Amino acid sequence: MFRLIEELYPICRSITGDGLRETLRLLQRQIPLELREVRTGTQVFDWTVPKEWNIRDAYVKNAKGERVIDFRKSNLHVVNYSVPVRRRMALAELREHLFTLPGHQDWIPYRTSYYEESWGFCLSEKQLAEMKDEEYEVCIDATLENGHLTYGEYFLHGDTRDEVLISCHVCHPSLCNDNLSGIAVAVSIARVLQSAPRRYSYRFLFIPGTIGAITWLSKNEDKLGNIKHGLVLTGVGDAGRLHYKKSRRGATEIDRAAAHVLKHSGQRHEILEFSPYGYDERQYGSPGINLPVGRLSRTPHGTFPEYHTSADNLGFVHADKLGEALAVSLEIFSVLENNRTFVNLNPKCEPQLGKRGLYRMVGGAADAGLSEMAMLWVLNQSDGKNSLLDIAEGSGLWFESIRQAASVLQEHGLLRECSGCVPSAAGLKLGKKS
Amino acid sequence: MFRLIEELYPICRSITGDGLRETLRLLQRQIPLELREVRTGTQVFDWTVPKEWNIRDAYVKNAKGERVIDFRKSNLHVVNYSVPVRRRMALAELREHLFTLPGHQDWIPYRTSYYEESWGFCLSEKQLAEMKDEEYEVCIDATLENGHLTYGEYFLHGDTRDEVLISCHVCHPSLCNDNLSGIAVAVSIARVLQSAPRRYSYRFLFIPGTIGAITWLSKNEDKLGNIKHGLVLTGVGDAGRLHYKKSRRGATEIDRAAAHVLKHSGQRHEILEFSPYGYDERQYGSPGINLPVGRLSRTPHGTFPEYHTSADNLGFVHADKLGEALAVSLEIFSVLENNRTFVNLNPKCEPQLGKRGLYRMVGGAADAGLSEMAMLWVLNQSDGKNSLLDIAEGSGLWFESIRQAASVLQEHGLLRECSGCVPSAAGLKLGKKS
Amino acid sequence: MFRLIEELYPICRSITGDGLRETLRLLQRQIPLELREVRTGTQVFDWTVPKEWNIRDAYVKNAKGERVIDFRKSNLHVVNYSVPVRRRMALAELREHLFTLPGHQDWIPYRTSYYEESWGFCLSEKQLAEMKDEEYEVCIDATLENGHLTYGEYFLHGDTRDEVLISCHVCHPSLCNDNLSGIAVAVSIARVLQSAPRRYSYRFLFIPGTIGAITWLSKNEDKLGNIKHGLVLTGVGDAGRLHYKKSRRGATEIDRAAAHVLKHSGQRHEILEFSPYGYDERQYGSPGINLPVGRLSRTPHGTFPEYHTSADNLGFVHADKLGEALAVSLEIFSVLENNRTFVNLNPKCEPQLGKRGLYRMVGGAADAGLSEMAMLWVLNQSDGKNSLLDIAEGSGLWFESIRQAASVLQEHGLLRECSGCVPSAAGLKLGKKS
Repeated sequence: MFRLIEELYPICRSITGDGLRETLRLLQRQIPLELREVRTGTQVFDWTVPKEWNIRDAYVKNAKGERVIDFRKSNLHVVNYSVPVRRRMALAELREHLFTLPGHQDWIPYRTSYYEESWGFCLSEKQLAEMKDEEYEVCIDATLENGHLTYGEYFLHGDTRDEVLISCHVCHPSLCNDNLSGIAVAVSIARVLQSAPRRYSYRFLFIPGTIGAITWLSKNEDKLGNIKHGLVLTGVGDAGRLHYKKSRRGATEIDRAAAHVLKHSGQRHEILEFSPYGYDERQYGSPGINLPVGRLSRTPHGTFPEYHTSADNLGFVHADKLGEALAVSLEIFSVLENNRTFVNLNPKCEPQLGKRGLYRMVGGAADAGLSEMAMLWVLNQSDGKNSLLDIAEGSGLWFESIRQAASVLQEHGLLRECSGCVPSAAGLKLGKKS
Repeated sequence: MFRLIEELYPICRSITGDGLRETLRLLQRQIPLELREVRTGTQVFDWTVPKEWNIRDAYVKNAKGERVIDFRKSNLHVVNYSVPVRRRMALAELREHLFTLPGHQDWIPYRTSYYEESWGFCLSEKQLAEMKDEEYEVCIDATLENGHLTYGEYFLHGDTRDEVLISCHVCHPSLCNDNLSGIAVAVSIARVLQSAPRRYSYRFLFIPGTIGAITWLSKNEDKLGNIKHGLVLTGVGDAGRLHYKKSRRGATEIDRAAAHVLKHSGQRHEILEFSPYGYDERQYGSPGINLPVGRLSRTPHGTFPEYHTSADNLGFVHADKLGEALAVSLEIFSVLENNRTFVNLNPKCEPQLGKRGLYRMVGGAADAGLSEMAMLWVLNQSDGKNSLLDIAEGSGLWFESIRQAASVLQEHGLLRECSGCVPSAAGLKLGKKS
Repeated sequence: MFRLIEELYPICRSITGDGLRETLRLLQRQIPLELREVRTGTQVFDWTVPKEWNIRDAYVKNAKGERVIDFRKSNLHVVNYSVPVRRRMALAELREHLFTLPGHQDWIPYRTSYYEESWGFCLSEKQLAEMKDEEYEVCIDATLENGHLTYGEYFLHGDTRDEVLISCHVCHPSLCNDNLSGIAVAVSIARVLQSAPRRYSYRFLFIPGTIGAITWLSKNEDKLGNIKHGLVLTGVGDAGRLHYKKSRRGATEIDRAAAHVLKHSGQRHEILEFSPYGYDERQYGSPGINLPVGRLSRTPHGTFPEYHTSADNLGFVHADKLGEALAVSLEIFSVLENNRTFVNLNPKCEPQLGKRGLYRMVGGAADAGLSEMAMLWVLNQSDGKNSLLDIAEGSGLWFESIRQAASVLQEHGLLRECSGCVPSAAGLKLGKKS
């Protein structure tokens, strides 16, 4: 995953344009991603697909002809979506188009101007301090013309039409955590799930933030009914703890699965309530869409100083943190895949586990094995109203041990899966203090 | 408000009689209060309107003819509703009619005997210690005869017949916090609301405690259906923190509005559960009446030593505390006035705020403005199931900023008020830890 | 109770056999218990009534003919349900049949082998260390043959057919807390309730653990509908605090009654959520039975070192602890007996308590008496939706004071019992922080 991030890092992405296309084509080497192109001017709900932006070069040259701001050194130097400009001007005039980050001498901020035609440069405080009051040559060699918005989509068929949506944004230029970390983990999830048995189908979206999600949703309203769970992946590579942000509905199966997996992960973590600010969960969780889509991140956007600056670089993301995020994501999907509801076929008193070889044979010992506890919980709660996740939550036991217990009990004819059963919405109210 | 309290302080009020009438007439100089008279003997639910009590003078004179207890010095000296008496008696006999407050040498307790015919004097421990074993002349120049119970009512019409009830008791003699503070704040509320636009009608009751509320309720059963919210005001002038006591139903709109306003007031405060003890919220919250009426007070009755003693005097109430209570009350009513339910007219994904001038124009900054957050919350939650107060509670934002956001969004055609919408009873379950 | 425990302590009980019968016959001296016999081989749900086990003697003799392990010294020395054996063998072979308790030099563990035919001896670590490598004479003079499973049942008629079930296990040999303490308290409950007025009927079961409960349930399915509340009693004599374990349903009337009684007991205690491990609440709480049966214990089984060892002896249980458990149990049943629902016959405003002699006659005092508070709570909440236990929980007052208030109010014609009223399931949501 880290190598993929290294490869993608130098590319100047935006919400449209060739940087975005190049990024998606690199991903096609890993997974059979399909690229979609949506024409400029297309109406997507309340929005319009914007002109396509492409940039070749940009600089500010001083009186000596030296590039004091140089796009070739960092693509953050240009305000993303700047209109073309090629002029000479005094510092005073130029100054209104320069953006720095007070408090961080060496960092370049990241700025965009997608929906208002303007131009600008971002630079470090140190660079700005060195600029003399002289005339500068300003060049942004960009085009902003009718074209297309591009996104990538990969649909992995499962046993059923029910889908899990995995979405990440691909519109940020050289920013590692906020963009590339989510892309890298999503690609790895896809590669793992390709070769795993799947009850659910999985749909992976690699889309420009906001406008991409809106575009996809507006063109795929007929598919929304199939989406049973979803996860936005972003900012999963920094050194902070994992944060799961709940879907708008707030107690959906993926919300509960994620909370369960994180609780049993042994890692410090946070569960965040839904709020209508953040990444594309905003769109998936708008009132007219209202899909059960949560978000997995580490330190939340906007709360770490490196956010949207040149310091969100290759040194800011860590291979082991990406690995942990991948593992947690896969375990969440494993809970969803295996979260079924069973009915105890011997519901009056406990079945005699001993005669089936499922019980310690010499009684009286002070401690029962953990898997016996799991079997007892599954038997006790499998009345058709509790899913395995309900039982895991109620018992305080790990989902995997509950799943294994159910599997053994089913093999011994003590349980039957109940596909028509609808677990009580709120889940099991028993159990450990949270 | 403090000046009104000073003016009312010397009057000897009771649950009936001329002191009560004089009090209400003084209030008529401030607001167009209507005085109602209900005849002695009138049956009001399980109670009977009592005889009218009036007092001219009262004293206990010692052998030298000196007034050792003198009604003219403090009207608390006479047990309220004492029957007339004019006799000479030894200290031993008189002693059974004397009430002091152990532990407070200089304070005179406040005692009443409304529903049992008896008489008595209240005095300080110090006064009692100075009384010698001699013969005393005892005089209570009072009358207890058929007459009327008086109360004041002021109805302020609003755009709808739905009412807010504001009730305070007016039956305590020279006690400032427990009586006059509530009266003063209620009068000020009335004066402010007179000149404000009003969705609700407001009904102000200035009534003797218990029997007054029972009398009003028994004579106005046909109006109870209009009362959508209510507030008992009392004990709001001392130096303690504000306490809001919930209505019997416990999660009504005024309960939630009051909790919201106090939470965002920046002041320390307490929210109390309903209990069937206290002031007239007991009657409004009886099971057969069950109106959504809460109570605003500061230090709860019975929990401060000055309660029901001569120490609840002009020095015990503070102009700034009255002002704070007024401000909080008005803000609660403002929340009720403005708590409407809207429907997002662009519910699929976010509307493009930028093209409407509702969004910062250069993207990428780490912090969104607070009012943008308010707009996003209102848009996200306005699905007809959440009122603005629901959204304020869910988002943790101040109601006023939510209201302003809704107003701006409505002006831009993004929201429509939904008068037929019924917000989910329990409110939004999202949001900040409380 | 302690004397009964002393009397029962030496008997070698098991899940069948003469030790069990002798135990039940000793209980018949205290209460008119009926003994039931169920034939070996009887199918009871998923289980089969096992062969009857009886033992006369057992020992291991060393080469000198000395009994180095002697059943006559402690009946824990033989693995309960050992098949007969009479052989000579070397230590190495014998070793596989010996069980000790690592970490406790002098304690003999308790082991059973009910459902697998095997044999063994339990002994202390110290005894084992003294056994030389020589030939031993091994004798278990026991029979394991077709016979019966025995249990005791005592049904105490009440005014209604609705039943309270009280169940304790009687299958453990010389173990005091885990077995005899529950038996002793159950017998005392029966003796007290015999001479008390009873709305409910009470059914006492003295049964072998697991198989006994399963047997009784399987043969009495037609009676289960009558069981409205139930309590498993066990491990109530040690020095630890009381623990009430909730029934499977988790918020039943006995769960709430037990929590209320323990809260007001002034003793430290714990409320445990249901789990499908423990004593016979497992069977009563299986999904196809699902009776509202909780469990009262002190230190939970398995969490104290003396559990299932010879150290659970007469010194481990305390007469005063048994007394406390008895008192708490009786108070729980008293709450159930008296938990009725009333309707306030004067629901509009408060009734005038004073004219009925139910109120302090001189008003104005800062504190109302507690029983007045209880009356006000009962009047305020008796709208047919709240039982007396609901009101006690909501007010934070003790059930007994609420009950007394209701009784006085009923005498004065202010309340009427509402037998058809169904209190709101979740109880009153008002009230004190828990």
